[in-house]
Amino acid sequence: MVRRVHHIDFVVRDLDAATARYSQILGVAPRAREKLDSRGVELVRFEVGDLWIILVRPVRPDSPVQAFLDRYGEGFFHIAYQVDDVAAEAARLAGEGVRLVNATPRRGVEGWKLIDLEIDDTFGVTTQLAEEDAG
Amino acid sequence: MVRRVHHIDFVVRDLDAATARYSQILGVAPRAREKLDSRGVELVRFEVGDLWIILVRPVRPDSPVQAFLDRYGEGFFHIAYQVDDVAAEAARLAGEGVRLVNATPRRGVEGWKLIDLEIDDTFGVTTQLAEEDAG
Repeated sequence: MVRRVHHIDFVVRDLDAATARYSQILGVAPRAREKLDSRGVELVRFEVGDLWIILVRPVRPDSPVQAFLDRYGEGFFHIAYQVDDVAAEAARLAGEGVRLVNATPRRGVEGWKLIDLEIDDTFGVTTQLAEEDAG
Repeated sequence: MVRRVHHIDFVVRDLDAATARYSQILGVAPRAREKLDSRGVELVRFEVGDLWIILVRPVRPDSPVQAFLDRYGEGFFHIAYQVDDVAAEAARLAGEGVRLVNATPRRGVEGWKLIDLEIDDTFGVTTQLAEEDAG
């Protein structure tokens, strides 16, 4: 079962300009700015209530986020729901006919374990399950 | 200042099928199914943590949600951030150069007061400010 929305990612081209604008809108400064080399991205994280609003930009031409940006432009990228055991939850959904992009969790920032659901099975919304690293 | 994410809307064509799928993914039954005549839509609301995940479909050809669906297809529709005083918060942002779609709040379900920000000023993310009805 999903506990809560864990994070929401927005893709942007100009991370500095977007960070300034979201600081205005949200009324808070970002909590972290970091790179995730495995995905070829740079991220800025805002803490809003008990979830993360994340701005992400590609930093390499072969980043999957660059491919997304080229195809769809700036905007909503994905939503991640927090679960206690991401592998078990993904296996349950797979057993019920929901296709997974990756059956084995990949790592996000802070050691988050992430499994992506197939977008055709989530009505056009890029959706992840996320487990926080216990360590 | 934004307190939290208040709700996230996804546009779908088949509300029954989407409701069944989101019940699977979220592991909970929806809390409400309702129509909002002013927007020509039908909505299903799931409570996830302290926010609403809302599935919405147009029920009239002249619904703004039908126009969105025709242009962009199914998927992410908007995110709403909860503030204490939506008019004051929107006025603050307008004073800082963020354009508003509607300066006067419109009403959502449950009497929510909603002001939409101009999408070109939010890096491609349809964004609302939301105030809950005190009554």
